[in-house]
Amino acid sequence: MITELDHVGIAVADLEAAVEHYRRTLGLEPVHRERVEDQGVEEVLFAVGTSYVQLLGALGPETPVGRFLASRGPGVHHVAYRVEDVAAALERLRAEGVPLVDEVPRPGSRGTRIAFVHPKGMGGVLVELVQEG
Amino acid sequence: MITELDHVGIAVADLEAAVEHYRRTLGLEPVHRERVEDQGVEEVLFAVGTSYVQLLGALGPETPVGRFLASRGPGVHHVAYRVEDVAAALERLRAEGVPLVDEVPRPGSRGTRIAFVHPKGMGGVLVELVQEG
Repeated sequence: MITELDHVGIAVADLEAAVEHYRRTLGLEPVHRERVEDQGVEEVLFAVGTSYVQLLGALGPETPVGRFLASRGPGVHHVAYRVEDVAAALERLRAEGVPLVDEVPRPGSRGTRIAFVHPKGMGGVLVELVQEG
Repeated sequence: MITELDHVGIAVADLEAAVEHYRRTLGLEPVHRERVEDQGVEEVLFAVGTSYVQLLGALGPETPVGRFLASRGPGVHHVAYRVEDVAAALERLRAEGVPLVDEVPRPGSRGTRIAFVHPKGMGGVLVELVQEG
């Protein structure tokens, strides 16, 4: 059901500084920027082969990424897998008893459909499933 | 200089249980297993498109992954980028003042050449550079 590692989501304290750092040190160029109000983030994507690196800046301290930064500091926030059918993937996880954050798919950035799986069901890793639009 | 997201390294408390969980819930099949004594880990790789997910079991409590598990619990341990020339990539990072774990490349699993970059130089993310053999 999984076709690619879609992206690694990385929480950063200063989005503009982090974008410049990734550009300068790793030679990556941003390909997309989007403010996702319902997730409380502004994201910048870098294309890395067939995957992305996603830098996440919090829109405020009381957002999921804002709380993550306050409690754990900057670092890897989630791992996203590209799937052909996010609803089918969710159904498989539910059938296996894996706790979900999203019981049904919802809109993500770039016109995708996404769902998050609870880290307690995936060995401490917040997992996102991404179906391209 | 980066051609792909090579893998995401995930520290797990029980390698066999985690392999079975990834197989059952995400439908992934392991493609490689290796005991890397000098890193103090046993790793299992799952191919995910052109990348890998790497589950890491510690060979003991006084290994890097053992200490990571004790202090932070299971979860994402590092992010690895595939590069054409790991020595050249290290040189670029050094020139940009990024602190390195490995000053020169060393052998990794699967016949790769690798080097780790210090998380304090990459916004809290332990970064690995991987050159295929």
